[in-house]
Amino acid sequence: MAPTKSGSWRSRRDEAPSGTVSRMTATALRSKDLLGIEALAAEEIALLLDTAESMRRIGERQIKKVPALRGRMVVNLFFEASTRTRFSFETAEKWLSADSLNFEAKGSSVEKGETLLDTARNLEAMSPDLIVIRHQTPGVPHFLARNLKAGVVNAGDGAHEHPTQALLDALTIRRRLGRIAGLRVAITGDLAHSRVVRSNIWLLTKMGARVVVCAPPTLMPPRIAEMGVEATTDFDAALEGADVVMMLRMQLERSGTSLFPSAREYFKRYGLTTARLARAKPEAIVMHPGPMNRGVEIASDVADSPRSVILEQVSNGVAVRMAVLYLLATGHVWEGEKDS
Amino acid sequence: MAPTKSGSWRSRRDEAPSGTVSRMTATALRSKDLLGIEALAAEEIALLLDTAESMRRIGERQIKKVPALRGRMVVNLFFEASTRTRFSFETAEKWLSADSLNFEAKGSSVEKGETLLDTARNLEAMSPDLIVIRHQTPGVPHFLARNLKAGVVNAGDGAHEHPTQALLDALTIRRRLGRIAGLRVAITGDLAHSRVVRSNIWLLTKMGARVVVCAPPTLMPPRIAEMGVEATTDFDAALEGADVVMMLRMQLERSGTSLFPSAREYFKRYGLTTARLARAKPEAIVMHPGPMNRGVEIASDVADSPRSVILEQVSNGVAVRMAVLYLLATGHVWEGEKDS
Amino acid sequence: MAPTKSGSWRSRRDEAPSGTVSRMTATALRSKDLLGIEALAAEEIALLLDTAESMRRIGERQIKKVPALRGRMVVNLFFEASTRTRFSFETAEKWLSADSLNFEAKGSSVEKGETLLDTARNLEAMSPDLIVIRHQTPGVPHFLARNLKAGVVNAGDGAHEHPTQALLDALTIRRRLGRIAGLRVAITGDLAHSRVVRSNIWLLTKMGARVVVCAPPTLMPPRIAEMGVEATTDFDAALEGADVVMMLRMQLERSGTSLFPSAREYFKRYGLTTARLARAKPEAIVMHPGPMNRGVEIASDVADSPRSVILEQVSNGVAVRMAVLYLLATGHVWEGEKDS
Repeated sequence: MAPTKSGSWRSRRDEAPSGTVSRMTATALRSKDLLGIEALAAEEIALLLDTAESMRRIGERQIKKVPALRGRMVVNLFFEASTRTRFSFETAEKWLSADSLNFEAKGSSVEKGETLLDTARNLEAMSPDLIVIRHQTPGVPHFLARNLKAGVVNAGDGAHEHPTQALLDALTIRRRLGRIAGLRVAITGDLAHSRVVRSNIWLLTKMGARVVVCAPPTLMPPRIAEMGVEATTDFDAALEGADVVMMLRMQLERSGTSLFPSAREYFKRYGLTTARLARAKPEAIVMHPGPMNRGVEIASDVADSPRSVILEQVSNGVAVRMAVLYLLATGHVWEGEKDS
Repeated sequence: MAPTKSGSWRSRRDEAPSGTVSRMTATALRSKDLLGIEALAAEEIALLLDTAESMRRIGERQIKKVPALRGRMVVNLFFEASTRTRFSFETAEKWLSADSLNFEAKGSSVEKGETLLDTARNLEAMSPDLIVIRHQTPGVPHFLARNLKAGVVNAGDGAHEHPTQALLDALTIRRRLGRIAGLRVAITGDLAHSRVVRSNIWLLTKMGARVVVCAPPTLMPPRIAEMGVEATTDFDAALEGADVVMMLRMQLERSGTSLFPSAREYFKRYGLTTARLARAKPEAIVMHPGPMNRGVEIASDVADSPRSVILEQVSNGVAVRMAVLYLLATGHVWEGEKDS
Repeated sequence: MAPTKSGSWRSRRDEAPSGTVSRMTATALRSKDLLGIEALAAEEIALLLDTAESMRRIGERQIKKVPALRGRMVVNLFFEASTRTRFSFETAEKWLSADSLNFEAKGSSVEKGETLLDTARNLEAMSPDLIVIRHQTPGVPHFLARNLKAGVVNAGDGAHEHPTQALLDALTIRRRLGRIAGLRVAITGDLAHSRVVRSNIWLLTKMGARVVVCAPPTLMPPRIAEMGVEATTDFDAALEGADVVMMLRMQLERSGTSLFPSAREYFKRYGLTTARLARAKPEAIVMHPGPMNRGVEIASDVADSPRSVILEQVSNGVAVRMAVLYLLATGHVWEGEKDS
């Protein structure tokens, strides 16, 4: 079931999609799985983004459907509810004509005491091509990937990685600012509990951006600087000269704990306002992975301003997931819609 | 994404479907949305019913599928559970070859504190063509429609409107009795909390029927007569000479409150029995939007009698929803299955 | 909507699929429904298994899809949660290009006090071709089948029958051991509460196998021997000379009741270990319907040994369900993929 992968590293100059610069890209992903950004080479990231760029065009048409993955089965396993991410993957699957099976944790055989591996092997026995999994425990997608022939896509594992989020963020940056290399990206929020920030740091640093991360001391992971980023608790300093201002969702349920005094106080110190945004570059863009807490991590007028690319992130998410599913399922480069 | 609408009001004589009379119909809906019956012109209602009449034939075949909406995406957002209505819409979508995404309120990002508008904009960023929404709060579909490019179909908003129910009721009446104009329609039950009755009153009066509504005093909205109907608390009087007897579902959970003494007592005063039905015209038909409480608002033998058209209502529901989805998504008249 | 059935009993010699022996088979199922194994003739079982054998090949291809049931609607009604069985049916439906509607009990109109028959009639009014139903109450599928034109597939009714499980077990045995007739099959576990064992006993005895069932005295149905099987509480005796060792899932929630002392004690007396398996024939296969409780009814190393065919059962489950859906929906023999 697993696609045969060339594993080849012949780099080639792609025709550059409009608005992007051409670069060295891989011709295939090396792994049957997308578990995180950490293990990807820059050339693979470029391949994914270039493919997503092509996929975007499908979503701009009236008939949003190509037969690329007809007769392939994708199983979406969401052990944590997430309408947004699930819809994005399902939309990508439908636009590619794949079949989907959808699973949510409640009432599943997981509750009947079966091991996760047995559940996975049972799924595999039904011959899915790809398994998309979101799980609260870091490493679960990796465990499945090691044990299954089907390709596994990590749709978020605990506070570990969320690679398709980082890829859609990168696609959004590249489309808006024309490149990633050399940009200054400020990421602010609950760094300690965020899978989004980890995947973004891996991706942005691999692609040559300078990343500064910012959080209150209680939400700052102790050794985060070892990931090759600048870390600060001073929000104004983080914003200074930024090309990209990425705000993270606050987990309001931590409010009242020692980690997080109150939403109001948080907004005062770390909420993105128009006044604060003035410290960033004049053409800086504002990003948020959603769902937003308006008035907590971001002021409403900033979220709705022309500098916000938050909804473009969502649109690009479908294209990125199409690229991931396509490349993993077929093992080769998307050549456009010869058969559509 | 929104279909371009001609907005033209060229009326034309349709070929009359068998069992119906020809009439002046519009050639397109004026709005990108179907939010209620109140805002529709009689010509638009006729267009919807004529289109549904054509769509019915698709459901009578062995291969119940036309490619009319291939590559279009419909998002079904059910903030209130309703297997019946959800299945009806999903069936309509599948018969038209549309893709569907399904959302139920539990576990969604709505619970994570995101605003409804943000949820909607996020959905829209994934380029759906149509959004079908059921919500407990009146006006929510209208709010979405104002803010989104996608067409919005109201599948029931609180006690406000349920336009596809009224349309399927109208299609059922027209098919059985050949017309709507001039008929006497008696609607009985919990008028105060019913969205079905409001949509039906708008539709039936626009199409020239005379409507009498009947409820116990505690369930009678004070100013309902202003909608152009006759109102009475006397069930026998309401039934007198009726062509159509429409019973509404009782909310049994109100039982024991001051609104509603007991199911048994309700049935005695307002339950439809064969004896009572004798007051209506001999060829009168019996309708119910379901799910029925047998022995509360309707006697079992009446529900199962040849005069009951309750299951035809359900069948016609699929056809009506196909018509709504088709007309909103394409913006033009259904010309039959040239491409099927 | 119901397929016209020839009802013919012309037996014919099928071309034997590789690994199986040719036999007399029916050319169609007699009933529009598959409610249980009890009512099937051996020739019908052979037809189902032969058809499933053909269907297996579809799952071995890259593009796992044939247009056989395009435009047919299958409604999956799961009043009991079961990810495994639901996925298996849904996969079968997608591979056959059928449309599916999925229903789970929570939040459905069942909770609104509607009768099951009304719910079913409402579904039928939407013209489904087949209804797949799992229900906690024995006989519910039969009740629906009597009242609906659509074909009904029992996906498990209480402790009564689970016919597709028995069919997939039979397909697995036939593929591994080349035949069913004459084999000795030992079935061990909670016989009192198992629908799997009842369906298997009907099937295996009809096809000429000798069945021995084994359980602790508290879980042994008093008159099970009347089903034509040997019954024993001695696990070692049951295993003696077995060709097939089928273990049933223990309901751990009964632990602590008088029926079932503890998981540990159960394993000691009735758990399948390598040592115990030595009593069976050297080429004996090990089966389990899943989900497994490792260390309760089966030792982990046995479950993972080459003699275990547990994952083949799952794979064969999809093929069997394709066969069932195909034969019921079309009423005729599968001739291969002329149109795929």
